[in-house]
Amino acid sequence: MKNQILTSKELNELKNDLPLWQIQDSKLIRDFHFKNFIEAFAFITKVAIIAESMGHHPDWYNSYSYVQIKLASHDLGGISNYDIELAHKINDIE
Amino acid sequence: MKNQILTSKELNELKNDLPLWQIQDSKLIRDFHFKNFIEAFAFITKVAIIAESMGHHPDWYNSYSYVQIKLASHDLGGISNYDIELAHKINDIE
Amino acid sequence: MKNQILTSKELNELKNDLPLWQIQDSKLIRDFHFKNFIEAFAFITKVAIIAESMGHHPDWYNSYSYVQIKLASHDLGGISNYDIELAHKINDIE
Amino acid sequence: MKNQILTSKELNELKNDLPLWQIQDSKLIRDFHFKNFIEAFAFITKVAIIAESMGHHPDWYNSYSYVQIKLASHDLGGISNYDIELAHKINDIE
Repeated sequence: MKNQILTSKELNELKNDLPLWQIQDSKLIRDFHFKNFIEAFAFITKVAIIAESMGHHPDWYNSYSYVQIKLASHDLGGISNYDIELAHKINDIE
Repeated sequence: MKNQILTSKELNELKNDLPLWQIQDSKLIRDFHFKNFIEAFAFITKVAIIAESMGHHPDWYNSYSYVQIKLASHDLGGISNYDIELAHKINDIE
Repeated sequence: MKNQILTSKELNELKNDLPLWQIQDSKLIRDFHFKNFIEAFAFITKVAIIAESMGHHPDWYNSYSYVQIKLASHDLGGISNYDIELAHKINDIE
Repeated sequence: MKNQILTSKELNELKNDLPLWQIQDSKLIRDFHFKNFIEAFAFITKVAIIAESMGHHPDWYNSYSYVQIKLASHDLGGISNYDIELAHKINDIE
């Protein structure tokens, strides 16, 4: 399936589809807290492998046991169906 | 604590202390099975970080969702207190 | 391209195509030596990400700064075109 | 050596000691650009292993082939000797 920006209708449905993710500045954002750095980094490693397999990568930030993931399709200027797919895959591994 | 080879008495106690680990050829061995490669590799990554922090590293083998870990102190020619410590840390993260 | 076992002719050409890899027991094998564990593990991480992206995974063994990679298509019972492709990708990252 | 905040004199010397790092908001900051995501992530993995071994962790941000590392001792409220040590170790592996 081609990567394309979500319609307003699809964006409105995200609240139900991905309740753990916030929409800010045209990005899907989720915060993760782990018990220590090693658990946080193992999670990061899983996301890295999944992202490269999809050919679609997150922006992310890590500080010790805290990870923030931001999903957006920079080339399309907003949230796309690939971002939704990656968000679901990240939910599944967490 | 200095790294030193276990006494026969300590080796005999391993069966109770580390029941999930087998002793073969003067090595502590445990097999791990995960649901897929990503889970197996996240586990390996945790072990890698812990091992480097201890300055004591396992020998390990991976084939898709299967991981085998072998612990021994090559320089001492057998199982040492560092191997016991690493085995416990690996048990804790799994 | 479908994954299929190499013909005898293709196997004979491997010596020229992949001179750093040995053929043993119907597997493609290469040894790698790094300056320390961290370098070895960074290499392993690259191979893990590439393998999952291909949906084709190596068997491998690590002991501190030493990594051995074995490539074979277990389901096909020998070396396949996917193994050749993965061997080249591993050569490229090393 | 105890972790302690740098004196003004030590902060002034950082420009010579760590010319690739900028000081902003009481943090040591360096940007890294790699050829692709896999290389960026292998670098992050090395930093992760080193950080856990030191018991001193960076804040970092990654977007595809770009990595930004920020070093500060949050508990001390500024840049410390551990941050300097970690910056040098990161320089060495890059």
